[in-house]
Amino acid sequence: MAREIALTPLKWQVGYAESSDAIPGKLAQASVPGAANLDWANSIGMPEWYRDANFTEWSWMEDVFWVYLADIPKQALEQGQSLWLVSGGVDYQYDVYVNNELRYSHEGMFTPFELDVTADMGSELRIAAWPAPKDPLGVKNNSTEAAQCVKPAVSYGWDWHPRLIPVGIWEETGLLIRERGYIKSAEVLYSLSENLDLALLEINASISGEGNARFQLYSPDGLLVVECDADQKPRIENPILWWCNGYGEPSLYSWNVTLYDNGQVLDKSSGRIGFRSITMEMNEGGWQEPYGFPKSRSPVPITLTLNGVPIFCKGTNWVNPEVFTGCIGKETYRPLLNLAKGAHMNLLRSWGGAIVNKDSFFDLCDELGLMVWQEFPLACNNYRGTPHYLGALEPEATSIIKRLRSRASLALWCGGNELFNSWSGMSEHSPAIRLLNSLTYSLDPLRPFLLTSPLNGMAHGNYIFKFEGQEVFQTMPKAHFTAYTEFGVASMSNLEVCLAATDMENLFPFKSNPITRAHHAFGMWGPYDTWSRVDTIKSYFGPEDSLKELIDWSQWIQSEGLKCIYEEARRQKPYCSMALNWCYNEPWPAIADNSLVNWPAIPKPSYFAVADSCRPRLASARIPKFSWNPGETFEADLYLLNDSLEALPPGEVAVSLAFCGKTQYETRWAHNGTEANKNLQGPTVRFLIPKEKLSPDAGSLNARPESKKKYEILTLRLESGPLTNEYRLVLYL
Amino acid sequence: MAREIALTPLKWQVGYAESSDAIPGKLAQASVPGAANLDWANSIGMPEWYRDANFTEWSWMEDVFWVYLADIPKQALEQGQSLWLVSGGVDYQYDVYVNNELRYSHEGMFTPFELDVTADMGSELRIAAWPAPKDPLGVKNNSTEAAQCVKPAVSYGWDWHPRLIPVGIWEETGLLIRERGYIKSAEVLYSLSENLDLALLEINASISGEGNARFQLYSPDGLLVVECDADQKPRIENPILWWCNGYGEPSLYSWNVTLYDNGQVLDKSSGRIGFRSITMEMNEGGWQEPYGFPKSRSPVPITLTLNGVPIFCKGTNWVNPEVFTGCIGKETYRPLLNLAKGAHMNLLRSWGGAIVNKDSFFDLCDELGLMVWQEFPLACNNYRGTPHYLGALEPEATSIIKRLRSRASLALWCGGNELFNSWSGMSEHSPAIRLLNSLTYSLDPLRPFLLTSPLNGMAHGNYIFKFEGQEVFQTMPKAHFTAYTEFGVASMSNLEVCLAATDMENLFPFKSNPITRAHHAFGMWGPYDTWSRVDTIKSYFGPEDSLKELIDWSQWIQSEGLKCIYEEARRQKPYCSMALNWCYNEPWPAIADNSLVNWPAIPKPSYFAVADSCRPRLASARIPKFSWNPGETFEADLYLLNDSLEALPPGEVAVSLAFCGKTQYETRWAHNGTEANKNLQGPTVRFLIPKEKLSPDAGSLNARPESKKKYEILTLRLESGPLTNEYRLVLYL
Repeated sequence: MAREIALTPLKWQVGYAESSDAIPGKLAQASVPGAANLDWANSIGMPEWYRDANFTEWSWMEDVFWVYLADIPKQALEQGQSLWLVSGGVDYQYDVYVNNELRYSHEGMFTPFELDVTADMGSELRIAAWPAPKDPLGVKNNSTEAAQCVKPAVSYGWDWHPRLIPVGIWEETGLLIRERGYIKSAEVLYSLSENLDLALLEINASISGEGNARFQLYSPDGLLVVECDADQKPRIENPILWWCNGYGEPSLYSWNVTLYDNGQVLDKSSGRIGFRSITMEMNEGGWQEPYGFPKSRSPVPITLTLNGVPIFCKGTNWVNPEVFTGCIGKETYRPLLNLAKGAHMNLLRSWGGAIVNKDSFFDLCDELGLMVWQEFPLACNNYRGTPHYLGALEPEATSIIKRLRSRASLALWCGGNELFNSWSGMSEHSPAIRLLNSLTYSLDPLRPFLLTSPLNGMAHGNYIFKFEGQEVFQTMPKAHFTAYTEFGVASMSNLEVCLAATDMENLFPFKSNPITRAHHAFGMWGPYDTWSRVDTIKSYFGPEDSLKELIDWSQWIQSEGLKCIYEEARRQKPYCSMALNWCYNEPWPAIADNSLVNWPAIPKPSYFAVADSCRPRLASARIPKFSWNPGETFEADLYLLNDSLEALPPGEVAVSLAFCGKTQYETRWAHNGTEANKNLQGPTVRFLIPKEKLSPDAGSLNARPESKKKYEILTLRLESGPLTNEYRLVLYL
Repeated sequence: MAREIALTPLKWQVGYAESSDAIPGKLAQASVPGAANLDWANSIGMPEWYRDANFTEWSWMEDVFWVYLADIPKQALEQGQSLWLVSGGVDYQYDVYVNNELRYSHEGMFTPFELDVTADMGSELRIAAWPAPKDPLGVKNNSTEAAQCVKPAVSYGWDWHPRLIPVGIWEETGLLIRERGYIKSAEVLYSLSENLDLALLEINASISGEGNARFQLYSPDGLLVVECDADQKPRIENPILWWCNGYGEPSLYSWNVTLYDNGQVLDKSSGRIGFRSITMEMNEGGWQEPYGFPKSRSPVPITLTLNGVPIFCKGTNWVNPEVFTGCIGKETYRPLLNLAKGAHMNLLRSWGGAIVNKDSFFDLCDELGLMVWQEFPLACNNYRGTPHYLGALEPEATSIIKRLRSRASLALWCGGNELFNSWSGMSEHSPAIRLLNSLTYSLDPLRPFLLTSPLNGMAHGNYIFKFEGQEVFQTMPKAHFTAYTEFGVASMSNLEVCLAATDMENLFPFKSNPITRAHHAFGMWGPYDTWSRVDTIKSYFGPEDSLKELIDWSQWIQSEGLKCIYEEARRQKPYCSMALNWCYNEPWPAIADNSLVNWPAIPKPSYFAVADSCRPRLASARIPKFSWNPGETFEADLYLLNDSLEALPPGEVAVSLAFCGKTQYETRWAHNGTEANKNLQGPTVRFLIPKEKLSPDAGSLNARPESKKKYEILTLRLESGPLTNEYRLVLYL
């Protein structure tokens, strides 16, 4: 629900102290919502946290209490009015004092709270946030320290996120005058008939004090379709359905609940409804597996079916767009989500190491037709089922479920990230997983719940172009999974983003140093040069002349690698029904990582490659390798990929191979079209690359006599109107 | 809990009617507990249900109401006393009337009920059981008809169970005089400290009326260790632990709750406690899987760990020991469970197609150290999450959990049988599975819950000796699973059991006819000769001279096949931690099926073979095939298997191969022993079987000039005191 009346901000100051009930000796101005440690760093003029390795100076801030202070201003209230402190959430464990009296305590950032402060006008309000929680069994300065809290683990340090743990008032918090009657909460749920032609609404409006609540519902085109008392259960016949991006309009009805008393409006709440059914159905061929005996179970059904239509989920893994999550607002989300829609994506996996996003994220996803796979805040740790942990998880998960369950865009819940793998060591026996399954079932029974990702049939990885001598070009066609829910090809960031992270002198010659390591280019996975992977780049191209050249090569590899994976996953439809790369965005200027979009919302070239590969209809080629030599027979298996709900008419695809500045071969594939939502396998084309030495065009950028391997760009082009697609490969000279 | 005062039986009659509130025109004497349809068949002199295909005449009884009648006798009650009708359960949906007034209705056989009938003395009591529930989407006369009820599916017909659906009062039911105060329920739960040295008791005693409840606890050797009020939480230091068969004593404490008022005992309840911890840990090597990328999850942890000790679970699948489950009593269970203990078994999988057993089953399992894997009554169907079904499942599952959660022998819960395979079509998304997870988690959080069996890592099948040309001798060494939770080798029943099923004229010459099909020898899986598998038998031995000879061959194959599978599963320890054959027992005289023990409790030869293979310590051989020819090199990989908690000292194993009436080869394996609970891989022995024609001993039973393939018994014997083990294979002459 949304309140119709905005909160009145308070004038906050913040400082640090040794205990929850102590008053800081020194105070700085605080931004609310925001982060106390960020306020403090700004106030004392610490250098930019996102440059160089400056963030390493912040570690002392993890272990103090951050205390916010504000005066509750005196104001004249009318008869029956009351004054409330209303907060969307404080990160992470905190106590609320009024004039030194403890009035509220909570552990967990996802639960809103409110306090009646009518009798406290003129008093001092204090919110004391405790030090960052750290599991005593965790490794110091490592994300395993997050294993006994419901705080996103990523801020404890990740291979694409600095160790920087935000703390403080992170959601909207302020004062609110309430009338003699008010709406404590309002929510509209519904059930849809099996053939989607009838919706039964359930209006959950909780009223305090006086007044009668009335309900209004408006159709997507703004017509009033229901008006009734809020205790009714209205029926909507033939509701206009909500569809995800690429399959139809994300049509939203809007509702309001208004509290009247003797003709006076006392309070008002509003929200939106997208009518749709979402189920998880078995992937085609899944029930036939495994074959033979001894026989295990079939894969987990993972074909997301929207309004009865099996969707091929093309999407990405969404991570925190900012390190200081309290600073995230709708304008942080908007450009990123617009880009996701523009890349033909329809599903965002909101990864369990990150926050559960703010309401404005879901407002935009509802509007853009971007479905959300929402994980609970568990990732890559063994969240042991201690009474303390389960006691913190239960209310937080309950708050998350209740806040989001009415969202059209929310497609499924998931227990968290990679919990059933060795590095987490959890399983379906883990109490935390059983609790989350129970809570989602009791509070939101119609929405699918995945215990974790991956489950059997599904897969994560790899995250690099070449592993144990195998390129993704070889690995992916051999892979057989129902859903690729994390895969990536690392690359370097755009040049201007690298320069936002540090000065050129730290970047070129490009090598491992404290700055490039801090920004994830080196040393992230043991001794490897993750995520810059310069070894792989140089194995194809030889040494670079400039940072720009290295970045170009790196981003070329990322672009073609991701094209290969997305399109191969699509070629494996309908057994495969999902392709989500790791990852979409990033929270600060990485020098290298897996993102498609640099911080804050700057697309890398791979973004455009992925956007091309995710078009609902396109011609596609399975290509056996990235680099070619003269005398080899180039080959590619051709496909038409069609995820749209319309058949593709018969037509022709012109297939051409170009190198050394011109088209060398051309052939045509005449096809009979394909049904709606079905792919078509076409011919395998083969072209002999001449053995004789190819003469590089004199003007070619790529004629690099000083590099070990001189190369040309080998372009495979499938030309067919809007289906046209192109692959840029390497040809050695 | 057990009541200390026995119920007073009523004098019941039973008949059938067209509706719940109709009075039957004709009545027969009824046995309670029992089955109404069985009472009726006996009363009208129908031929024995278990012979021939007589049961097919029973089908009309599925679709009528079965109405029990009894008078509530008048009796003098003292001041404060009340009279109760107390029932452990009625199968399946029923209404209870007193003098035509509907007093209670319920759907589900696992929920007990009671009625205060103090004011009803002299009245007529009527219990009307509804027709057998049938899912309208089910296939007529098929077990899919059980897909919308909580009644065991097996009685709707299975490949080892006739279509015979019991109905009526199936648990103890009678009258009880209660004093002015009584114990409504009493249960004792506990939590154990991590190092098992402290138990905290939780006494849940619910009292109605007057009185004070006192609690007493006696140690396994009968000493009073606690005496206190029943609202206390006593602590037991260093409790004597309960162990499963083969690992220690199944030590049981006993308790009672006594309700006193002014020195008078008003009521008494009693029970037992076995202190032990059970967890499911990852199988050794499990976290290292899967290797490489794209990477799915690791297998489901399935190493049952009792009091911190990883147990290799050797056991079996337990099914209904009688078709008419109301006739099952402690004396039905006792011989079967004694045999299971005698076969060194430690885990019984109480299969989801069958009933959840009566209290006397768990009394015996508690005493014998037989752990129970208890499934809810879901098997091989898609139990769709309709409001009706979930509304029936929730109270029934709750009753089952509350009744059994204090049992020492109850090791784990499981959602049901093979639900995540094509023939069921369910998954972790299914509401019924999510509900069962929620209920077990909230009511019995410390006991493991498996969503179904098999899960990934685990496997079911095969059920026959040879499939697609591969014997279990070849299939099993290639299999790689954490738990073989169902596997079998079918065989024919003992001769006297076949003759209990029908006359010899229907049995020999042995072929498919209505009787052999009804008793599962033929036509069970499509056109195959399941379960007699005469094709396989004849492929080894040629045509039989007598039924006895066919049975001997069949049981030989079953014995050696099961030896191979149990021992191979044990050789795969510690990655593998469980071996449970399909199935242990049977509910009527099959002519052929997978059982080890014929109805009612007659061991087949395979029982003894399995008992040998399940000894905690033995020498074992991996043998590549069942039948051998002259000129071949016989080979076998030798192992010492040790599941015991003691190391095996160094020693020697004499290895011999015998055929044609005498030992032909002999060698010795000197070993250094093996640690506690660890196996030891030994040498591969090889012996050349002479090419020259082997002369059968003139007196050999097996010299059969008229059969296609003359054969000798080839015996591999591993001789080493109590570790001695023997395999009987085939050598063609």
